[in-house]
Amino acid sequence: MSVVSIKWAGSHLELLDQRALPAEARWLQCHSADETAQAIRNMVVRGAPALAIAAGYGLVLAAQQGENLSAARARLAAARPTAVNLAWILNRLSALNTAAELLEAVQAEHQADIALNVKMGAHGAAILPDGGIYTHCNTGALATGGHGTALGVIRTLHGAGRPIHVYAGETRPWLQGARLTSWECLQEGIPCTLVADSAAAQLMSENKIQSVIVGCDRVAINGDVANKIGTRSLAILAHFHHIPFYVAMPFSTLDRTCSTGAAIPIEQRPSEEITHLAKRAIAPAGVQAENPAFDITPAELVTAFITEHGVLKPPFGDWPMVDGGA
Amino acid sequence: MSVVSIKWAGSHLELLDQRALPAEARWLQCHSADETAQAIRNMVVRGAPALAIAAGYGLVLAAQQGENLSAARARLAAARPTAVNLAWILNRLSALNTAAELLEAVQAEHQADIALNVKMGAHGAAILPDGGIYTHCNTGALATGGHGTALGVIRTLHGAGRPIHVYAGETRPWLQGARLTSWECLQEGIPCTLVADSAAAQLMSENKIQSVIVGCDRVAINGDVANKIGTRSLAILAHFHHIPFYVAMPFSTLDRTCSTGAAIPIEQRPSEEITHLAKRAIAPAGVQAENPAFDITPAELVTAFITEHGVLKPPFGDWPMVDGGA
Repeated sequence: MSVVSIKWAGSHLELLDQRALPAEARWLQCHSADETAQAIRNMVVRGAPALAIAAGYGLVLAAQQGENLSAARARLAAARPTAVNLAWILNRLSALNTAAELLEAVQAEHQADIALNVKMGAHGAAILPDGGIYTHCNTGALATGGHGTALGVIRTLHGAGRPIHVYAGETRPWLQGARLTSWECLQEGIPCTLVADSAAAQLMSENKIQSVIVGCDRVAINGDVANKIGTRSLAILAHFHHIPFYVAMPFSTLDRTCSTGAAIPIEQRPSEEITHLAKRAIAPAGVQAENPAFDITPAELVTAFITEHGVLKPPFGDWPMVDGGA
Repeated sequence: MSVVSIKWAGSHLELLDQRALPAEARWLQCHSADETAQAIRNMVVRGAPALAIAAGYGLVLAAQQGENLSAARARLAAARPTAVNLAWILNRLSALNTAAELLEAVQAEHQADIALNVKMGAHGAAILPDGGIYTHCNTGALATGGHGTALGVIRTLHGAGRPIHVYAGETRPWLQGARLTSWECLQEGIPCTLVADSAAAQLMSENKIQSVIVGCDRVAINGDVANKIGTRSLAILAHFHHIPFYVAMPFSTLDRTCSTGAAIPIEQRPSEEITHLAKRAIAPAGVQAENPAFDITPAELVTAFITEHGVLKPPFGDWPMVDGGA
């Protein structure tokens, strides 16, 4: 069974509610742009490409209801202000006015995102070795239009019958590896073992890991990578153990305003994500916590970037500008 | 307030139930060797020296109840097979037969452990730099007879008025850093920031960490260190960032039967510690998890060992045999 998380259901949008996973695969119906914006704000859907596609369908709903499209675009964009490709898709759609035109365009973006991920999967599958593949966070069908980026490469390898075994780091504090990546693997029968983030070094020393593959939130022109906290650690550990470390990077993630990772700001998230789990305290009241959401991995530690244009090495400044692709 | 976690209460043993911390300081009573072994197995008490002292009191309880002491020693030793000084204290006590003799010997071991930690603290304080100190798991008064090993060094530094700031890794899956180390620091006013284990690399890259100090569960003659899962990762990250990495090692932790870390078995603990938190599922039903409790850090990555005999480098084979001291 192939994981789907965003469905256009004829006249409304359906989103797999990622807050309920892995306990329950519950679908949320959105009948308006505002319901879609609320779902985005409330983390029903997450992952930059998935957010962009959901927002696009939200704009279709606004057109169906005869809303002012410019106001609807603003409300959808404001639902997740840091998600840059959400703003991009809404800009690209700003020339269209009817629900039918918008639906056709959004469905094309949705299909294009899946096609791009399938292409990345093929490029990645051509170079990833068989065996243990360590991955971090969730970069699968739940985070994209479908198939996924880093987990898309794994999906392609599994689909081709290659002997692989996924080691999914649980990814504290949000546990995307535990809740989402291992769920996706279970759905499709991809062999998967869940581990604490801090176990990666030991697994590497036991020769259980033949490669590491992660996604990225933003890449500088020199190839420095901003990604989920824990990525830098994995890159250093892979380097120490002589294990290749790959980054799955759709070109839409390249930020041409950043020459190096030093220019990428690190989002600090609330302490409560560390001190509490599901609203329950796991640390003493009054303790300070620091919770950087991302870290920076230096380009030298990345064996290669797996992109829709093939397996590449930085710098990326000479690559032609792309307009984002959802 | 100075933290106490193991008390002999006249005729039985009382252990501060570390599973209930930090929400509640609840004491568990043990009236037999088997109750003590169960408390050890169930992580009521943890930390190699604390385990050894608890096991010693467990043997006193066996003698009080007229049990076969040799069988009781075997059951207590099997409760936590990686903890070598648990086996050692039981061996040292094997010449004694009455409850009174055993109690006197165990209480002496308990006091000796505190004195030894205070000595290690002084040696460590002489070489640790001021500033950010990253530590892992809990190696404080809760893990020892009192004062602590790695956290004992920190306690000594703080007591001397040195400007330090503790970064406590939360230490998945058991969250000893979140639940115990940050609790101990709060009790004594030691400045402390709690972080996800996977954030260590980013903090190091931001120059927030001037040293790393950890404890150890077992050390091979060549200096390879078995310690809480995540230690190997920290040692590699410290090496990459040119930050000194110290191991606080009471000589009782040295295992002369192991010439290198390759000879140290890694205890695998139940999957449920990864897939569940406080009995609540955080991963999908049916997912596989791997849960090594310890990892091996190669001696080359350890800047120095802080021991009761001073700050040392391996190999340790030429050091005179010590009888352990709990």
